[in-house]
Amino acid sequence: MELVLPKDIESRSFEIIEREIGDRRLDPICKPIIMRTIHTTADFDYLENLCFSDGAVKSLTDALKGGADIVTDTQMAKSGINKKMLAELGCEVHCFMSDEDVREAAEKNGTTRASASMDKAAGLYGGAVFAIGNAPTALVRLYELINEEKINPAAVIGVPVGFVNVVQSKEMIMKTSVPYIVARGRKGGSNVAAAICNAALYMIRDGFKA
Amino acid sequence: MELVLPKDIESRSFEIIEREIGDRRLDPICKPIIMRTIHTTADFDYLENLCFSDGAVKSLTDALKGGADIVTDTQMAKSGINKKMLAELGCEVHCFMSDEDVREAAEKNGTTRASASMDKAAGLYGGAVFAIGNAPTALVRLYELINEEKINPAAVIGVPVGFVNVVQSKEMIMKTSVPYIVARGRKGGSNVAAAICNAALYMIRDGFKA
Repeated sequence: MELVLPKDIESRSFEIIEREIGDRRLDPICKPIIMRTIHTTADFDYLENLCFSDGAVKSLTDALKGGADIVTDTQMAKSGINKKMLAELGCEVHCFMSDEDVREAAEKNGTTRASASMDKAAGLYGGAVFAIGNAPTALVRLYELINEEKINPAAVIGVPVGFVNVVQSKEMIMKTSVPYIVARGRKGGSNVAAAICNAALYMIRDGFKA
Repeated sequence: MELVLPKDIESRSFEIIEREIGDRRLDPICKPIIMRTIHTTADFDYLENLCFSDGAVKSLTDALKGGADIVTDTQMAKSGINKKMLAELGCEVHCFMSDEDVREAAEKNGTTRASASMDKAAGLYGGAVFAIGNAPTALVRLYELINEEKINPAAVIGVPVGFVNVVQSKEMIMKTSVPYIVARGRKGGSNVAAAICNAALYMIRDGFKA
C-alpha cells in the first residue's frame, strides 16, 4: 500500500474527488460543501442531489460567523460537528432528542420525538441553523413552524435519509422562503448533516466571502 | 403527504427495501445486517459491497451476547450505537480518539490518532468487537496487531469511507483469520459502523440463533 502521510490524506482525497468530477462545473460557492459531502460519503450522487437556495451558503456562513447556534435531530450529527471550530465562533450545537420533556411531549401529542424536539428548539433557538440528518418528521415540523411564523431559521440543512416521508419532507422545505441546503431524494444522513456544517466552518476559517 | 405513523415508519421502510431488492436472494443470516445498512444509507450498493467472512455474524452476535465491548474509531459511531440495548447485554462502547495519551502517542510516533487509539485498545480490550467507520489507518493498525498476535478481536467491522488507503485497508483485514464484516470499496462510514452494530443487537433481541 502506498504510504500517504496522515496530514496529506485529506488533500489527496480532495484531489481524487476533483479529478473524478472532471469537466463538470460546480458553482464555486457551493463547491466546498458538495466536495466535503462526497468526501464524507464516497458517493458522487451528491453532485446531483444537493440543492441550494439562492444565497444559502452565504446565509449559513454569515449565521455561523455571527455566532448562531446549530440545532440538530441526532446525537450522531451533534457528535460529528467540529466543536473546536464552533466554539471559536461562539456557536454551540444542540440536540434535544434525548430530553425527558421532549419524550413526554411526543407521547402526549402522538408525534415523534424529532417533531417534539423542533417545538422545543423553536422556543429556545428559533433563529438557529437547523441541521436535520435523520428524521423527516423534524423537517415536516420545521416546515409547519416556518409557515406559522413561529420560527425563522438562519438556514435549514435538510438531509434526512430513508424511504418513508423523506423525499416529500425535503420538497416541502424547498417550498419555504428560508435559506436551505437539501439533499434531494432518499439519501442523506447524520454524517452528511455534520459534513455540511463542517464544510461551512472550514469555509469561514479559510476566509470565504460571498 | 401520506401519513405514516411514527411507529410504522421503520417497518414500512423495510418493506420498501425488501420490494426493491426483488428476487435477489440474500444469505438469511447476513440479510438483517445488509437491510439495516441500506435503511441507514438509502444506498443499495451495499447489496454488493458488504462482505462477510464465514460465521462472522455468529461471531459478532455471540460476542455481544457474551458481554463483549465494542471499540470504535469515531465519536459519531459511538454516539449512534444503541446504548440501551448494549447495556442490557452488559456491553460498553469505547472510543479513544480524543484521549490525551492517544494524541501524544500519535505525535511521538508520527502515526494517526486512529492508529494510536488501536494500540491503546489492544492493551485494554484486545478481544472486543472493533467497529471502524472512518479511519483506514485504524484498520491497517488492526491488521498489524492481529498478525503480531497482540490482539484477537471477536469480530472486525471494517467500513471506513474514503479515497485514500480505504480500499486497501479493507482488503488487508479480509486476509486475516478474524471474523469480519467489510464494506468493500470506498463506501462506508460511522453511520454504517453503527448500523451494523445495531443490526446485530436487534438480531439478538429478536432471538437470532446461528
